[in-house]
Amino acid sequence: MVQQQRAAVTRAQIVRGAAEMFDKSGFEGASLVEILEASGMTKGALYFHFRSKEDLARHIIAEQHRISIAAVEAIAAQESPAIEQIVMLCHEMARQIVQDPIVRAGIRITLELSADDRGPAGPYLDWITACHTLATRAIDQGDLLGTIDPPVFARFVIGAFTGIQTVSQVLTHRTDLEQRVDEMWMILLPGIMPAARHHSMPRVRAARTSVPVTAESFDDQDRPALTS
Amino acid sequence: MVQQQRAAVTRAQIVRGAAEMFDKSGFEGASLVEILEASGMTKGALYFHFRSKEDLARHIIAEQHRISIAAVEAIAAQESPAIEQIVMLCHEMARQIVQDPIVRAGIRITLELSADDRGPAGPYLDWITACHTLATRAIDQGDLLGTIDPPVFARFVIGAFTGIQTVSQVLTHRTDLEQRVDEMWMILLPGIMPAARHHSMPRVRAARTSVPVTAESFDDQDRPALTS
Repeated sequence: MVQQQRAAVTRAQIVRGAAEMFDKSGFEGASLVEILEASGMTKGALYFHFRSKEDLARHIIAEQHRISIAAVEAIAAQESPAIEQIVMLCHEMARQIVQDPIVRAGIRITLELSADDRGPAGPYLDWITACHTLATRAIDQGDLLGTIDPPVFARFVIGAFTGIQTVSQVLTHRTDLEQRVDEMWMILLPGIMPAARHHSMPRVRAARTSVPVTAESFDDQDRPALTS
Repeated sequence: MVQQQRAAVTRAQIVRGAAEMFDKSGFEGASLVEILEASGMTKGALYFHFRSKEDLARHIIAEQHRISIAAVEAIAAQESPAIEQIVMLCHEMARQIVQDPIVRAGIRITLELSADDRGPAGPYLDWITACHTLATRAIDQGDLLGTIDPPVFARFVIGAFTGIQTVSQVLTHRTDLEQRVDEMWMILLPGIMPAARHHSMPRVRAARTSVPVTAESFDDQDRPALTS
């Protein structure tokens, strides 16, 4: 049992070191030597847990997948109107990117690996699917115009959010990300909410998850399979 | 003179080979050996023209800067309403990304280098500035609501576009990019145009540059200085 716990700690430290290096230098740029240095582990320990650098990368993407699903479930479990949950979703994605090195590493390597067809689209699809479900519900609740096509809207919202965080990264190292996400909703809401609901726009814009989402990033029991 | 022309051709081939490798493997991932193989040039030729891989990367970003400025100027020179020029701008960015390996390489290495503070924000700022100017004009022309703040709107549009192309890359290798950009305007226009102008939404959505933008990517006389 103690040995199992020690193995889990070792594994977690390797994943943390790898996430740090992938976030900093990318999949191609991060060497195994640097990953070992960042995690303070030996080559033997790394190869006991992971077959290769690609195996580590896929593990991190699967972790990111798990973290995003946990967040989606936590938000969906709240009682707020669906339109508010969509706004919460975007602010939660921003929070994860700013605070979680595994999420940042996952984003970077997903992009790199997708350039030559090795990349899984998992986390993007998680967010798009969640947003699609919520948009359908928001139309039923009268908060989103019936002329809006939920899958098109969902892909647009996740796409727009993705780029807003990219530009925020390039221009301000993401220090202005929360404000930029808020501005996105300030610009979008008047065009997507029926006029009769415009009075609730300030409340929708201000929606945030009340329950902090705590995914235990390093416990990868029953983590979901990679979708690609 | 002939020697000068030969030097220019050599230089252009090195840049093209470097762009191909940076687009494929990123700045860290692309080795000088691979860049030489992709361009069919010798190490001596490369070092005659460029000091280092970083020098090559900066040259490519400067080229991308020049290409984006040429496009902005070509669009601004047209007689269409400013709101249509904003739509044109987005479709032109999409066209460049799909068709020009220098632009794709520039985007990728800008992101990589900005992760550790070496990245110039040039092309993002070019597009944001152009969109800002056009948004101010579109408000004057009555096509954009006066409640919209031009710099906030410009940063949002360029951010949203950036992410839409990222998600399109990950999910479909950018084969659906033009459609996704069109959907972005379908969702945005009703909320940003005054009701009295809604009748012209189909025309605005359909706006494209009539003059093909042809920047001679490989002639780098008087290329602008890098902004960082």
